[in-house]
Amino acid sequence: MTFREASAINGSPGTWTAEVREGWDIFGVSNGGYLMAIATRAMEVESGGRLLVSTTGHYLNPTSAGPVSIDVATLKEGRTLSTLRAKLSRGDRQLLTVTAVLVDPGRESFEGDLIIGEPPQLPPPEECLLAEPAESAPLPPPFTGKVEIRVHPDDARALYGEKSGNPLMRGWFRLRDGEALDPHAVVLATDAFPPAIFNSNLPVGWTPTINLAVQVRNPAPQGWLACRFSTRFVTGGMLEEDGELWDEDGRPVALSRQLALVPR
Amino acid sequence: MTFREASAINGSPGTWTAEVREGWDIFGVSNGGYLMAIATRAMEVESGGRLLVSTTGHYLNPTSAGPVSIDVATLKEGRTLSTLRAKLSRGDRQLLTVTAVLVDPGRESFEGDLIIGEPPQLPPPEECLLAEPAESAPLPPPFTGKVEIRVHPDDARALYGEKSGNPLMRGWFRLRDGEALDPHAVVLATDAFPPAIFNSNLPVGWTPTINLAVQVRNPAPQGWLACRFSTRFVTGGMLEEDGELWDEDGRPVALSRQLALVPR
Repeated sequence: MTFREASAINGSPGTWTAEVREGWDIFGVSNGGYLMAIATRAMEVESGGRLLVSTTGHYLNPTSAGPVSIDVATLKEGRTLSTLRAKLSRGDRQLLTVTAVLVDPGRESFEGDLIIGEPPQLPPPEECLLAEPAESAPLPPPFTGKVEIRVHPDDARALYGEKSGNPLMRGWFRLRDGEALDPHAVVLATDAFPPAIFNSNLPVGWTPTINLAVQVRNPAPQGWLACRFSTRFVTGGMLEEDGELWDEDGRPVALSRQLALVPR
Repeated sequence: MTFREASAINGSPGTWTAEVREGWDIFGVSNGGYLMAIATRAMEVESGGRLLVSTTGHYLNPTSAGPVSIDVATLKEGRTLSTLRAKLSRGDRQLLTVTAVLVDPGRESFEGDLIIGEPPQLPPPEECLLAEPAESAPLPPPFTGKVEIRVHPDDARALYGEKSGNPLMRGWFRLRDGEALDPHAVVLATDAFPPAIFNSNLPVGWTPTINLAVQVRNPAPQGWLACRFSTRFVTGGMLEEDGELWDEDGRPVALSRQLALVPR
């Protein structure tokens, strides 16, 4: 099953449904980027096909495989920008609320781009560690089998108990079987790697996302995404994780930031 | 009038009102951090006095001085974390929607803080440039008279037409007349400085915020805040601005990120 199929929506404007699929989870809890991608897909259709530029999700309850409903409301429809809200729920249980901004794909183009920084320096994908579900260990989780994640060797040893001491997780991302990326896959990519703090002295364990915000700067990147996730501030039991995703031409694809609870 | 008075709320649970005050604006449009502070104040009361740790606002329409209503809903009330939503409106006109996370102030304390980075290196406040309303020029705007902002001399010349070429805006922040900071003032501080891109080669002009997200790491910092705002990615007519706010002891107070439109 492709990502596009696994995140497909049905229904009609205002009230959509989807099936959260088996295997897109970590320890039985569906991946946060995957769930947000279902919501942004519904908002994209609801907006009349505008392009996702920003999405912020707040996770209210853990979600497992099974049916969900997605209520979508348009908060503002402007000439070039739309702001929409989506609410994922299962019965009375609220799972996730998302606010997204989408842009008219036909608006005038802009010049004067400014880019400070560059993609992470990574060995070629074949020299990075392919994260694949372990047969006899809880990590890496089954979810890693749904996407193709190749982790920088310097950062990957955390998955096997050897922390680098530097809260960093770098690597390559693409979908399986050559499936093309869309903005929803970009959202998925921002939450697909193991937490950067697995390389710090904090415990390795469940790191619940409180909220996740993504700015999509390229909705249809080609080839591999070069990804860099880092955590700089752990205070009061909470951490931020910042992500930068770049395409193979060295152009920014997405920025992400999440707030999460420190694993206990 | 103090900031606390200017951002005061009235009313009762679920439906609050506030008066957006004159002078807290840039070219007649009320400051985004100020408006968000009114919303987070309502959410703080609604949560029963929990502490603000995260807030994300989407600006739907420009706001001017005058009365607003604030509808607040609790999306989730957990043992230690609450997620709330606030909607600012004036009549039928939706102005701002905010989602915030607040934490039980009595929850267990955490050890193992991790902080990578340090406050910006700034000359002492008296050697920085006090941003004050200009009598005969549109910049700095009247809003700067409501707070005390002292801008790093290397970054301040942008306000007088001399761009540094480096999209950075650093300086000190505090409230006027010794008023103590609370989490809502911290939110205000994240949107109080001139845009960092005033020091880039982009036009100096109105830079409309699409959304603003703040993580508050210290709800009651003492003394001056050392602030650093920078923009690294301007693509497709949109820019991000990231902020870091630190206290005088070198501890993080807040992280912020906004998505804004490039000035034309």
